[in-house]
Amino acid sequence: MTENIKFAVIGGGSWATAIAKMLCVNLSEISWYMRNEAAIEHIKTYKHNPNYLSSVEFDVKKLKLTSDLNEAVAYADYIIFAIPSAFLDTELEKLTVSLKDKIIFSAIKGIVPETSLIVGEHFHVKYEIPYYNIGVITGPCHAEEVAMERLSYLTIACGDDKKAKIVAKNLSGNYIKTKITDDIIGTEYAAMLKNIYAIAAGMAHGLGYGDNFQSVLMSNGIREMKKFIKKVHKMKRNINDSAYLGDLLVTGYSVFSRNRMFGNMIGKGYTVKSAMMEMSMVAEGYYAAKSAYKLNQGYGAKTPIIDAVYEILYGGKDAKTVFKALTDKLD
Amino acid sequence: MTENIKFAVIGGGSWATAIAKMLCVNLSEISWYMRNEAAIEHIKTYKHNPNYLSSVEFDVKKLKLTSDLNEAVAYADYIIFAIPSAFLDTELEKLTVSLKDKIIFSAIKGIVPETSLIVGEHFHVKYEIPYYNIGVITGPCHAEEVAMERLSYLTIACGDDKKAKIVAKNLSGNYIKTKITDDIIGTEYAAMLKNIYAIAAGMAHGLGYGDNFQSVLMSNGIREMKKFIKKVHKMKRNINDSAYLGDLLVTGYSVFSRNRMFGNMIGKGYTVKSAMMEMSMVAEGYYAAKSAYKLNQGYGAKTPIIDAVYEILYGGKDAKTVFKALTDKLD
Repeated sequence: MTENIKFAVIGGGSWATAIAKMLCVNLSEISWYMRNEAAIEHIKTYKHNPNYLSSVEFDVKKLKLTSDLNEAVAYADYIIFAIPSAFLDTELEKLTVSLKDKIIFSAIKGIVPETSLIVGEHFHVKYEIPYYNIGVITGPCHAEEVAMERLSYLTIACGDDKKAKIVAKNLSGNYIKTKITDDIIGTEYAAMLKNIYAIAAGMAHGLGYGDNFQSVLMSNGIREMKKFIKKVHKMKRNINDSAYLGDLLVTGYSVFSRNRMFGNMIGKGYTVKSAMMEMSMVAEGYYAAKSAYKLNQGYGAKTPIIDAVYEILYGGKDAKTVFKALTDKLD
Repeated sequence: MTENIKFAVIGGGSWATAIAKMLCVNLSEISWYMRNEAAIEHIKTYKHNPNYLSSVEFDVKKLKLTSDLNEAVAYADYIIFAIPSAFLDTELEKLTVSLKDKIIFSAIKGIVPETSLIVGEHFHVKYEIPYYNIGVITGPCHAEEVAMERLSYLTIACGDDKKAKIVAKNLSGNYIKTKITDDIIGTEYAAMLKNIYAIAAGMAHGLGYGDNFQSVLMSNGIREMKKFIKKVHKMKRNINDSAYLGDLLVTGYSVFSRNRMFGNMIGKGYTVKSAMMEMSMVAEGYYAAKSAYKLNQGYGAKTPIIDAVYEILYGGKDAKTVFKALTDKLD
């Protein structure tokens, strides 16, 4: 049934590389777009991405590598976007091939800064993709563990069950289990919001709070996330499913999370600017904090953790003082 | 109002020591029972417990230390038990002083092996203490972080609000925040069950599963805990409150947890017997797994994680095989 369905992966980072690896288990050919032509040549010659998950060896005969976004889009029925949200809009401006009738899956965990929309909404609003052709691929999943073939669970969200199943089937394998849901809004907001909580976790750690506080922060975080998502899109969901709580935990408790690292530096006394300069890339949660905070001005959910992160990152407030006040709002 | 209320702490371990430290912030005198007479002499002379949290310095004038359980019980209105559940019944057999009219708070996280009851139930059934005189002190709280005066949140549960408030007030301080609840059954079961999940987390780690799986295990764990506790005592509770989810996380993600360590050894291939011998003390979750499993034969909640831990610890089954089957039951 899915033999003739063509997939393209958009992005050359670790998550894109992990997704390409998963798809290659099930498909005889995929298109894989990345900007970096040197990386493409490297993969063709040495069978691995030189910059990310370089332990992963590819059967290069399966890869239609291209640095031309239009080529990848023209090739595919299903297009999986896995680039930082900050680059998405610029990338999409290169498009001359129509996205009409394409099925778009987002593996991006963030907000598009230019429009303050989550990725699914961005495609819907700006490219008029109907929601039944939009989906989300969400964790809890560190790409690094996919590289090591450690058992991971993915949730594939799409308003159209059949499309979710097709993506799920083509990502599944010995070490990848998948489930599907129709909660595209909720799973994508969760994937975005969790990065804010990971920044908060990093800040707390940097400020010297311990594991006891961290667990209180996470249990308040998931309650806050539930309230926020309920305001955005009310439906029956179990916030403790892996796509929400699991994703929060894998990021919040990971010392490798870029967002947690970013928060940690700020907790330790770096200014926001110097923490950003210290990191090779801006953490997704940096944009997410602003968007979530602004959005919530309309929703009015009680979100003391998001508010605290926003005040520190954008309000120029001192992390120590803000967290001291935050501790009285948690329980 | 609480000036004349007398507290006794029962136990000489790290959690008892942490509780004694918290109480000494608010009270001019407490009774503190421990079996170990050498430890008592050491505290009197050197102001710290030689065996646990030895960085904590006590104002020894405040401590009525005793190795006579009856003396401590006779002294106090509120008695806080903080000894391993496996020793509780033996200790209580020493009692000649009546527990009638005493208010009993349990800081024990486990099942009394002799009766397969949680501690509150044990006191109620065996000593006829009415439930309004029984309470629970629960985390998320590593005693070690109390010693370091790192911010921690406690939940104090009692059917009688006033008593919960009195205990909360006397434990609170600069680095201890408290909240109260009337869910004595749920908080105590959560404190017991989380040790089983910590064993499972350790087993998974020992077997080579990574962080992605760990987050899925924890998010399945909290859903399972919710179902189990609902069967035991149905009431309105938010399972994501710190006393339930927070307590699960601080234990499940702690590399210092005895339960996690125990599970880790078994995951790495130790037999149950040799893992127990390797550790100076049996992990609470070892007893909890048996009791929870047996109890659930009556309740019939869907608890694949508890079942898996039980099968490995008591059914002689191979951890690798059991976990392989478990991974298909999680999502």
